[in-house]
Amino acid sequence: MVDYFKSLIQPDIRQMVRDRDKAGMAALIEVMHPAVAASILEDLYDAEVWAVLDNATLHNRVEIFEYVALRRQEELVKQLDQRRLSELLEEMSPDDRVDLLSRMPAERVEELLRLIAQAERNDIRRLLSYDENTAGAIMTTEYASLPVDITVGEALLRLRQQAPDSETIYYIYILSASRRLNGLVSLRELILAREDEQLANIMEPDVIRMNVGEDRENVAQELARYNFIALPIVDDDDRLVGIVTHDDAIDVVQEEATEDAYRQSAVEPLRDDYEDAPFLTILWNRGFWLLALSLVAIMTAGMLGLYERATTHGSRNAPEDLSSMLIILFLPLVMASGGNAGSQSATLFIRMFALQPADAAVPGTEFRVDRRLVVRELMIGLALGAALALVDAFVVAAGYGLGWWPSAGASQDLWRSLVVGVTVLLIVLIGTGAGTLLPILFRRFGMDPAIMSNPLIAAIVDVLGVVLFYEVAMAIL
Amino acid sequence: MVDYFKSLIQPDIRQMVRDRDKAGMAALIEVMHPAVAASILEDLYDAEVWAVLDNATLHNRVEIFEYVALRRQEELVKQLDQRRLSELLEEMSPDDRVDLLSRMPAERVEELLRLIAQAERNDIRRLLSYDENTAGAIMTTEYASLPVDITVGEALLRLRQQAPDSETIYYIYILSASRRLNGLVSLRELILAREDEQLANIMEPDVIRMNVGEDRENVAQELARYNFIALPIVDDDDRLVGIVTHDDAIDVVQEEATEDAYRQSAVEPLRDDYEDAPFLTILWNRGFWLLALSLVAIMTAGMLGLYERATTHGSRNAPEDLSSMLIILFLPLVMASGGNAGSQSATLFIRMFALQPADAAVPGTEFRVDRRLVVRELMIGLALGAALALVDAFVVAAGYGLGWWPSAGASQDLWRSLVVGVTVLLIVLIGTGAGTLLPILFRRFGMDPAIMSNPLIAAIVDVLGVVLFYEVAMAIL
Repeated sequence: MVDYFKSLIQPDIRQMVRDRDKAGMAALIEVMHPAVAASILEDLYDAEVWAVLDNATLHNRVEIFEYVALRRQEELVKQLDQRRLSELLEEMSPDDRVDLLSRMPAERVEELLRLIAQAERNDIRRLLSYDENTAGAIMTTEYASLPVDITVGEALLRLRQQAPDSETIYYIYILSASRRLNGLVSLRELILAREDEQLANIMEPDVIRMNVGEDRENVAQELARYNFIALPIVDDDDRLVGIVTHDDAIDVVQEEATEDAYRQSAVEPLRDDYEDAPFLTILWNRGFWLLALSLVAIMTAGMLGLYERATTHGSRNAPEDLSSMLIILFLPLVMASGGNAGSQSATLFIRMFALQPADAAVPGTEFRVDRRLVVRELMIGLALGAALALVDAFVVAAGYGLGWWPSAGASQDLWRSLVVGVTVLLIVLIGTGAGTLLPILFRRFGMDPAIMSNPLIAAIVDVLGVVLFYEVAMAIL
Repeated sequence: MVDYFKSLIQPDIRQMVRDRDKAGMAALIEVMHPAVAASILEDLYDAEVWAVLDNATLHNRVEIFEYVALRRQEELVKQLDQRRLSELLEEMSPDDRVDLLSRMPAERVEELLRLIAQAERNDIRRLLSYDENTAGAIMTTEYASLPVDITVGEALLRLRQQAPDSETIYYIYILSASRRLNGLVSLRELILAREDEQLANIMEPDVIRMNVGEDRENVAQELARYNFIALPIVDDDDRLVGIVTHDDAIDVVQEEATEDAYRQSAVEPLRDDYEDAPFLTILWNRGFWLLALSLVAIMTAGMLGLYERATTHGSRNAPEDLSSMLIILFLPLVMASGGNAGSQSATLFIRMFALQPADAAVPGTEFRVDRRLVVRELMIGLALGAALALVDAFVVAAGYGLGWWPSAGASQDLWRSLVVGVTVLLIVLIGTGAGTLLPILFRRFGMDPAIMSNPLIAAIVDVLGVVLFYEVAMAIL
């Protein structure tokens, strides 16, 4: 729905920017949900984004900015001078601003902190100190808290003062003078209770809490298990230091699922979404694993060489024997290269689809994939194929030299290594192509793209690998 | 933390049941969070569970029951007579009871519905009618709603009456007389507003909503995108029919991630968690795909047969040539079988770990895997291996008969088919073993089990596959 709305409204916004129609921009921003505004602004040029946001109130500007993807936030803040940036940071919620700061160069952060009020500064330094995968890194410090010795009526009064600053006021934490967590009362219980009731009588004293150093995945799982809106995070002395809210937990669950899906297909997890990640990062995070897997496949070839030598007792020497020896030895390497590269592509696209569901509800908006992503994926396939081909051809040639597999004469061995290299290049390209296009086709026709499982892509690539290997061998040798 | 607590308290509970210590059981149940109580009770015998729950108030009993896993709920209700079951169902929240009813035989549901009050009955029938994957199937009908023409003070009064029945009262939906969705006001805004303010002035009129037929995955994604606590669900006439809450959305995100992870590794999604799913279901949901992939590998063998015949011009007939022909043709089949079975095991265990994080925070509780699960997985590997071995040996023998690959004489062909069958059986066992044990070992030593990616398992199985294939061939032929 948002994508549809986006395509309608972006040209209007661009026109408003050109016309410097401040009133129009201000009005438009006020009526949209900040998440919708963020999603529309993300695709504009940096200067346009700020031209629009400058017409919003600071509060609204920050709210919209917080919904922008982290990598885009990083780009956008480069356009701001120190003063405007520190203003933005001061207003941002503690967890979101620390996420942004942790991606900025340390010197810039230090300069910025000097411009930020003392209290906020300490908060930022503390949150920045927690390890990336812990509760501390995802919690916010803006929670609602009350002392134990007041009545419900007083509690409601105080809550009204805290409300604008708290991420949620639906759970209120009851703290001792030393900020130890003594209890919890929900806003629901609070408005149901009599005004003169003591808070101590209606609070739940046995609060489920987690330590600030706990793995963020565990925190998300616990929150999900209890259906909580927020989970309190305490330090080693049981003092409340923050809360993790339901929306952060759902983000963690999605990010961890993406990381696991990537790892399972031998893609080192990316810091950004696949569509936003830099070309070279994707290349490295995949190439690294493909090369490692290639080396295991070389071991397979070595093992095949050993057995072939043992079973044929050196009786082979006709040229056709030696060429089928080439196939025996290196077909597993060829198949694994194509299959693995294809699985990587399929996983990246299938996971991307899973995180961006189709707008089935809006008539007239059919499923489309950004063509640039497909082209980029094929370029990555080409680069991966070339890198693997070079390494594999070199190792195969070296293996002939070192006697890992039966030689057919030095010059013939070099040609054979070339056959392996060329075949690997082509099969990786085919694998990447199949891994990209088959899930897209399945999705297009309304089927679950995940049916194009990694083993199925690999099996298809296997059949093609055989054809390719023989054809290349016949063409070159 | 819960697991640790569980092991401490379960023996005490069992003792209380034996002693019929009603007061003790009632007291224990009252102090625990219902999710904790559910997790402790789940592992007791059915009769024990009800012996304990009978001492809780109906409200509390239902709350605990709702936290019990669906498959366990299904078993437990078999112990209840119609009257007690209908009492339980009437008190359950609409979405949870429909999940349970949709797993019960249609006749039993009809009998039960007769015992349930008219209003509830209609609600149940309506919710049961929605397709499993839609918003309608995950929404609850217990939301808080108000008319537009009242003041904030009146709204708070009415809300206090609705509170006990609503799943959440933090978002209140403003409805027209015909139940059309006109606006939204949060409880936070409500308690911040002046008592004599008109609701119409503080409500957000532009409410993001979704249709009851929308894919549940899209609903969860939208809720996550906007950081909502709940998302209103409307029918085609824009009348409010239910809400999807944040805790249901997080469950959907986890379930969909599990389904995708399974599909990606060629496991047909299971209705229950892996640990609870029936043996035969797991066998079928994996064997089905393994067989299909096997057939593609047979095509690969056929392709290899074609090329081998073309390139060797029929010059092969020495026995050692024909035995290396056996390896060439069927090595891809052997490798794919072992690799795919191994990937399935690895995915099932890695995903199970992801959904049950380690209790790192509690000293003395080290990571343990239920040994029965490992044994069951190896039994599944044995059954899968046997099934694949039979089918593959048969198809290979048939292929010799039909001339798909060069024959070496009828009796020799049968022996060769036997070699393929035996090797497939062994490699599937090895694949399953590696896919099960390597992630467990990695997890045990505190590393991410997902590093044991499917391609890595497959590569390891490939090396072993070569050794195995030659050894079996040499032993049998």
